[in-house]
Amino acid sequence: MNPLEEALKIKEQIIAWRRDFHMHPELGYEEERTSQIVEEHLKEWGYKIKRVGTGIIAEIGNGTKTIALRADMDALPIQEENDVPYKSRIPGKMHACGHDAHTAMLLGTAKIIAQHVDELPNKVRLVFQPAEEGGNGALKMIEGGALENVNAIFGIHVWRNLPSGVIGIRDGPLMAGVGKFDVKIIGKGGHGALPHETIDPMPIAAQAILAFQTIISRNLNPLESGVISVGVIKGGNAFNIISGEVEMSGTYRFFNTETKDLIEKRINEVLKGLTSAYGASYELKVEEIGPPTINDPKMAELVKTIAKRMGLNVVEAKKTMGAEDFAFYLQKVPGAFIFLGTKNEAKGIIHPHHHPKFDVDEEILHLGTALEVGLAFETL
Amino acid sequence: MNPLEEALKIKEQIIAWRRDFHMHPELGYEEERTSQIVEEHLKEWGYKIKRVGTGIIAEIGNGTKTIALRADMDALPIQEENDVPYKSRIPGKMHACGHDAHTAMLLGTAKIIAQHVDELPNKVRLVFQPAEEGGNGALKMIEGGALENVNAIFGIHVWRNLPSGVIGIRDGPLMAGVGKFDVKIIGKGGHGALPHETIDPMPIAAQAILAFQTIISRNLNPLESGVISVGVIKGGNAFNIISGEVEMSGTYRFFNTETKDLIEKRINEVLKGLTSAYGASYELKVEEIGPPTINDPKMAELVKTIAKRMGLNVVEAKKTMGAEDFAFYLQKVPGAFIFLGTKNEAKGIIHPHHHPKFDVDEEILHLGTALEVGLAFETL
Amino acid sequence: MNPLEEALKIKEQIIAWRRDFHMHPELGYEEERTSQIVEEHLKEWGYKIKRVGTGIIAEIGNGTKTIALRADMDALPIQEENDVPYKSRIPGKMHACGHDAHTAMLLGTAKIIAQHVDELPNKVRLVFQPAEEGGNGALKMIEGGALENVNAIFGIHVWRNLPSGVIGIRDGPLMAGVGKFDVKIIGKGGHGALPHETIDPMPIAAQAILAFQTIISRNLNPLESGVISVGVIKGGNAFNIISGEVEMSGTYRFFNTETKDLIEKRINEVLKGLTSAYGASYELKVEEIGPPTINDPKMAELVKTIAKRMGLNVVEAKKTMGAEDFAFYLQKVPGAFIFLGTKNEAKGIIHPHHHPKFDVDEEILHLGTALEVGLAFETL
Amino acid sequence: MNPLEEALKIKEQIIAWRRDFHMHPELGYEEERTSQIVEEHLKEWGYKIKRVGTGIIAEIGNGTKTIALRADMDALPIQEENDVPYKSRIPGKMHACGHDAHTAMLLGTAKIIAQHVDELPNKVRLVFQPAEEGGNGALKMIEGGALENVNAIFGIHVWRNLPSGVIGIRDGPLMAGVGKFDVKIIGKGGHGALPHETIDPMPIAAQAILAFQTIISRNLNPLESGVISVGVIKGGNAFNIISGEVEMSGTYRFFNTETKDLIEKRINEVLKGLTSAYGASYELKVEEIGPPTINDPKMAELVKTIAKRMGLNVVEAKKTMGAEDFAFYLQKVPGAFIFLGTKNEAKGIIHPHHHPKFDVDEEILHLGTALEVGLAFETL
Repeated sequence: MNPLEEALKIKEQIIAWRRDFHMHPELGYEEERTSQIVEEHLKEWGYKIKRVGTGIIAEIGNGTKTIALRADMDALPIQEENDVPYKSRIPGKMHACGHDAHTAMLLGTAKIIAQHVDELPNKVRLVFQPAEEGGNGALKMIEGGALENVNAIFGIHVWRNLPSGVIGIRDGPLMAGVGKFDVKIIGKGGHGALPHETIDPMPIAAQAILAFQTIISRNLNPLESGVISVGVIKGGNAFNIISGEVEMSGTYRFFNTETKDLIEKRINEVLKGLTSAYGASYELKVEEIGPPTINDPKMAELVKTIAKRMGLNVVEAKKTMGAEDFAFYLQKVPGAFIFLGTKNEAKGIIHPHHHPKFDVDEEILHLGTALEVGLAFETL
Repeated sequence: MNPLEEALKIKEQIIAWRRDFHMHPELGYEEERTSQIVEEHLKEWGYKIKRVGTGIIAEIGNGTKTIALRADMDALPIQEENDVPYKSRIPGKMHACGHDAHTAMLLGTAKIIAQHVDELPNKVRLVFQPAEEGGNGALKMIEGGALENVNAIFGIHVWRNLPSGVIGIRDGPLMAGVGKFDVKIIGKGGHGALPHETIDPMPIAAQAILAFQTIISRNLNPLESGVISVGVIKGGNAFNIISGEVEMSGTYRFFNTETKDLIEKRINEVLKGLTSAYGASYELKVEEIGPPTINDPKMAELVKTIAKRMGLNVVEAKKTMGAEDFAFYLQKVPGAFIFLGTKNEAKGIIHPHHHPKFDVDEEILHLGTALEVGLAFETL
Repeated sequence: MNPLEEALKIKEQIIAWRRDFHMHPELGYEEERTSQIVEEHLKEWGYKIKRVGTGIIAEIGNGTKTIALRADMDALPIQEENDVPYKSRIPGKMHACGHDAHTAMLLGTAKIIAQHVDELPNKVRLVFQPAEEGGNGALKMIEGGALENVNAIFGIHVWRNLPSGVIGIRDGPLMAGVGKFDVKIIGKGGHGALPHETIDPMPIAAQAILAFQTIISRNLNPLESGVISVGVIKGGNAFNIISGEVEMSGTYRFFNTETKDLIEKRINEVLKGLTSAYGASYELKVEEIGPPTINDPKMAELVKTIAKRMGLNVVEAKKTMGAEDFAFYLQKVPGAFIFLGTKNEAKGIIHPHHHPKFDVDEEILHLGTALEVGLAFETL
Repeated sequence: MNPLEEALKIKEQIIAWRRDFHMHPELGYEEERTSQIVEEHLKEWGYKIKRVGTGIIAEIGNGTKTIALRADMDALPIQEENDVPYKSRIPGKMHACGHDAHTAMLLGTAKIIAQHVDELPNKVRLVFQPAEEGGNGALKMIEGGALENVNAIFGIHVWRNLPSGVIGIRDGPLMAGVGKFDVKIIGKGGHGALPHETIDPMPIAAQAILAFQTIISRNLNPLESGVISVGVIKGGNAFNIISGEVEMSGTYRFFNTETKDLIEKRINEVLKGLTSAYGASYELKVEEIGPPTINDPKMAELVKTIAKRMGLNVVEAKKTMGAEDFAFYLQKVPGAFIFLGTKNEAKGIIHPHHHPKFDVDEEILHLGTALEVGLAFETL
């Protein structure tokens, strides 16, 4: 069985699925229509199905090992600005990150596997996941059993930063972990003309914002990557009254536990010291939202080998500060997250992910399917 | 005619008026009931009346010179917490700054003057003003003609920081001028994980807040008084998105034009330089809300002389950073603003102005009336 | 005995003395020639003399009360740039603050008192003090007994900010107290390319300097006066090595104990909090160098009364942030420090104190003598 | 000819040379003894010699292509604290960065090449360089002709961060470029008690230090590496005088021109904007001291191939923020800089470069020679 040949045979089918999903985008945990279509096909092809909300865990095959393949299905609250026949029919919603393509590719993979189930050396687990965009749907799927007895897991993301059809793979950290912090600096409010009767939280917040910069510029190893961004600041209700509080919320990014711990520890130390310097107090809530996406070196090597064997153009993927909830699977099971280039300047497919004009080059979707099939049929 | 004796005669009447007003507080420009009561009395006593909205300009007498006396009538949106028979009957509204007393005292003054109009060496103009609390009612009254042909103007404020019955007077600046500034720092928003693609306004706002401190600590003569307070800061909508803007609003205080000009000029210079340091831009709106209250030396001396002649305890009033729209009258006409002490620890009358438990020592209200009458009968 | 008439008689003598001292300036604690001349005269006139280094304590009279009069004698390390017959003959030294005039005036006073010792109601103590300029000579004189049994003390300073001959007097704080602080911020040095292995003291020092500004702008009552200035900063030896330490020295100014205590407390709190925010430590030395100069209200009133009685032009002196070691006498004994105006634009006497072209209007020196004589003969 | 076998034959000789150099360390541009020993050997072995100060350019062979091999010879002003027979005999000087080993290895290489010159496919150029430690000796050698007609250049550095005998190689940026900046912030000095008459440079310097942090934390792509460190700050002479100036010097690090340009541009923009915000001015001198060390991908691959062929343990070297003047050669000619691990915990060889107890594991020096010989005999 030649994965690439098999994928080429259903290339148009994959494109048709993708267009159907694209026209009917559904937000995280609302993937009713999408998951129903997926489920019907999978059932028809002989998969054992387990529902996890709008997610689907499907299994086929009889090997002693289990290989999992994952696609995410959710769309974004963005109004599409593309003028294409398959434009989103749902106002204010759009597949602007390519999850429609992921679902279609994996559906194609499911079909091919089912046709060749006799040759399959492993059990194959397909994970159609909801709510990757900020919903941590991966966690729900793991709770639902997606990783039970799984020996390896793979996922593909269409990628605007690589030319169409190029496979990007990297061992080790690929995408950043992400955290959220919420700070309340608590001074003592009062009359704007009588600062000496107050503890003005404004200069404290100012000093804190500047001190946060030093965590990146002074405390973090310059050869590591990390980010702290204050996204929201809010304090006070009247121009002539000194506010009792200033609140800030922000995000931090990291590729490893050391950086995460450093940032979390330093944010707290900075706030503790600064507020005490001013006789104020603070509240701090820090939470990791998602870990970094870290590919297993052997699994990354396996992807590279299989892709090259198919004649695909394989490059080392660049790290990105963006986050991906596939990271949760990789925390528990070895595997790899793979980029599939879709940038095509000739076709005007150049817009970044989450852009109202984001699109993918459909001509290469079958390559993703082929790679998934190749991985499914690999003896680990 | 002895002003103090005359005032003593109607002491209970003044207290009764004050209690009535106290029970029926009305916010700025809503002083319908109060002004109607005042107007009825003034008409009855023979005053010529001119209405300016809820304000009243009343005149009596035939001299060649005109002396104006002013009372403000508005209450505050505060829920009274005193447990007194004359407690506010209007939920959420309260005479927490003593304007009820001012109105009652001037009503008493009006009555005495009317009784002795034959002895009056001047014309007397009574100005019952709305909306002193943030409404700049004084400006409306001036527009309405309150100062036409006026040679001198006086006003009294009951004062918690002086012991009951003590007269506080000062020549030169007494209360601060007040300004408002609105700043928008305009950077370039973007993804919280990609700060290099943005111009983050947060550190710029932080540096601006700290630079504002140096205007007071480094640019202002330490022997002068000035305040800059950022009351409100607001920027960003999502913790993981770098905001395109941060907005701040604040107040500044001053006792003279040099300080006002210095603060306004430096705020602008600081923002211009700091935003250019970061490749950002800014919008700044600065407006004087009210000038400082500056007593005319001769008029202040006159008040002192008359008060001492009556046997009152006169001290030099301390300056305060608080503001008062009586300042607008003093910009146009010589005069003086007078503090009348009402602090009485024995009676528990100790709470600051604008406090839910603010009250005045009614035993001394007639002293204010006596002083006003004394001024009205003075040959300038 | 009419003090002004007596002073007028020796006006030229006072001027001659002043010119002699002006031509022979001596720095703090080096006032050998000056004090010898003073001592010879005082002995000749019958004063009991006590030497305190280059200082002189002289006494005369038999009353039960003792009034002290003080003059300072030291010059400054400044090269005079005036082109006058009595120009300093000592290169690099100059009476640029008028202490020559102070000494000459008090010498005149001594002469007149001696001539009228029979009419003297009090003992009079004359204090010719060394080292007012940064040397705290006043403390040496107090240690030497200058204030023993003294009931009141007065001193005069010629004053460039008042017109020639005008007496400036003020009750309460007149000149600022002064303190010194030395800070060492202790981080952890290291390679300039490896900040994460260090605790860089530079951003800590930066945040401390900015936090110091908030002590004045936020913690100090805007109606009070105070200053914190960092005069010296020093850290690091090589551009490419992160320094282990940054040192700062500065001064602070105040008019009362509350302000002094506030500044000292806040400097410490700021450093404690900020260094803990960064995992650094600090050393802080704070010392009051001199207290504020605070006139006793009754003594100030007495000066005013006597000066007015003589027909002098008396105004309320403005406070100044400058310091004066006369403050030490006033900490122990009631008294007053008096300004005697010497600004005379017609004569070109306009340069500020400590300027190479500073001069005094000699025509008014006898007024200072007259005032001192008047105080000496006052029954307290 | 088998490079590793040949190198093994002279292993003890290489160690002997290294010990001799170690015992006689010479600082940059003072490598008289070292270079004389090198020169004598090279002459004896038939090399054509060109002297460049204390540096040597030596050539042998007849191919059409020229391969250059480089060793640095200078020691450091450090007092050795090792207790070994070959301890430095020069007080205060020490080979604490392994340049003794580099010279010995290349001398071994020279000997082997000379013995097999007939088999040599290329001309070989040996570059024994002075003053790598802060002296930019590489530039002198390039000026002296070291790179004329050279097709490729290689250099080896013994490396404490890799286990003994391991080869670390990396394509692209390996070591950081380094720059220096000198800033003078020019305010207006004055009396410490009169800040309003000055432009205090202290808060400006403080804000500049904090703004520099944002260049790394906000302007630099988090996936890139860069450093800005202020190493020296200096301002003011007296605690009670506001200084007219503050001076700062610092270093910056980068791996590419974009980062270098960004840092240089932003430092200037920050200073321009901040000083204008305060009415101050500035002087800024920025200079690149050395470029990043960037390996040519093909040459790095060649090193890897040859090293693996010899059976050596090859890993991808980690980038380091440290700098190396080999970068200047690589700016002009393709080549690669190679790390040779010398860490050996069993032998106690664990101390970092520039440490008084730094040492190298001599057992692996012949591996460096073998690799150099292998490169010399490679047909490019």
